[in-house]
Amino acid sequence: MPLVTPEAFVLGMSALGAAFTMIAAVGIGIGQGFAAGKAVESVARQPEAQGDVLKTMLVGQAVAETTGIFAFIVSIALLFINPLVGML
Amino acid sequence: MPLVTPEAFVLGMSALGAAFTMIAAVGIGIGQGFAAGKAVESVARQPEAQGDVLKTMLVGQAVAETTGIFAFIVSIALLFINPLVGML
Amino acid sequence: MPLVTPEAFVLGMSALGAAFTMIAAVGIGIGQGFAAGKAVESVARQPEAQGDVLKTMLVGQAVAETTGIFAFIVSIALLFINPLVGML
Amino acid sequence: MPLVTPEAFVLGMSALGAAFTMIAAVGIGIGQGFAAGKAVESVARQPEAQGDVLKTMLVGQAVAETTGIFAFIVSIALLFINPLVGML
Amino acid sequence: MPLVTPEAFVLGMSALGAAFTMIAAVGIGIGQGFAAGKAVESVARQPEAQGDVLKTMLVGQAVAETTGIFAFIVSIALLFINPLVGML
Repeated sequence: MPLVTPEAFVLGMSALGAAFTMIAAVGIGIGQGFAAGKAVESVARQPEAQGDVLKTMLVGQAVAETTGIFAFIVSIALLFINPLVGML
Repeated sequence: MPLVTPEAFVLGMSALGAAFTMIAAVGIGIGQGFAAGKAVESVARQPEAQGDVLKTMLVGQAVAETTGIFAFIVSIALLFINPLVGML
Repeated sequence: MPLVTPEAFVLGMSALGAAFTMIAAVGIGIGQGFAAGKAVESVARQPEAQGDVLKTMLVGQAVAETTGIFAFIVSIALLFINPLVGML
Repeated sequence: MPLVTPEAFVLGMSALGAAFTMIAAVGIGIGQGFAAGKAVESVARQPEAQGDVLKTMLVGQAVAETTGIFAFIVSIALLFINPLVGML
Repeated sequence: MPLVTPEAFVLGMSALGAAFTMIAAVGIGIGQGFAAGKAVESVARQPEAQGDVLKTMLVGQAVAETTGIFAFIVSIALLFINPLVGML
């Protein structure tokens, strides 16, 4: 009776990998939250600038989102199309 | 019945590696978010400078993105073209 | 049937190493993002200085990029020309 | 059939070491980015001081770069001239 | 056939140690960069004080560098003259 087969080892490490990948979100959450905080502060000071503030915040947050999307792609690739187990 | 074959060990560590690589995004998210926050603050104070502010923000964020792209390249290389397993 | 051969151990650790190397990007993202944020703030206050601001930002960010490039070189060396496995 | 030979263990740990070394870049990126941000801010306020500002920034960043170069030397030594494996 | 000999274990851990030592550079980079940023800010405000500012920055950064040099010495000692393996 095998304990850990080669496939199981690769898939097990992939499960851990899919998880560690999302640690990326730590920084993206902090960064986007800082932008949101500054937007809130700015809208309170200049309520008439609300449209511009929201637009600028969303553009800036969208850029910060990109590396989070990279991490999500790696995580999803490890989970659903796992190319590593096919190299065994 | 083999437990963990050489290929499985290299591929399993590659799965972990593809994940740890994306921790790079932590700093990039914080940095880009800081730039976005400052852009929001600036647009609220000088709405007439919105075009310049957005342009400067995007140029600065693009530079910060570069090391994130380096990390994504390493991660994708580990996942899809894994050169290490071919060296066995 | 071998479990983990010497080559597999070195290459597996190299996969992890190629990943850990890119954690360097955490600081570079924060630093370059800070420079970008200050540039955005400055352009909004002195729009006439936009050329100087962008130039100074890019020179400063380029210096911060250098250690990120060092890390990328180490990562790519571990992945593609792995000199350690040849020392076995 | 050996599992992990002495050479493989030393070289595998060296692969990890070459990577951990570059974590040094985290602080250097933050520090150089802070200097760049302050330079940007200063150029916008005193555009006539741009030459002095850039010179001071580059001297200061060069000092901060030194420890990054120390780390890169250790990393490259582990990868390419590995003195430890010769001590076995 | 030995798996991991005592010498290999000491030398492998030394490879990791030589790397972890350089994480010292994280703080030194942040500190020296902060000093450089404040020097840049000061030169822009009092351009006539540039000589004094640069001198003060370099003295301060040199003190911060000392611990980085200590770390580099420990790292190089672990790599090139490894005194631990001789104690076995």
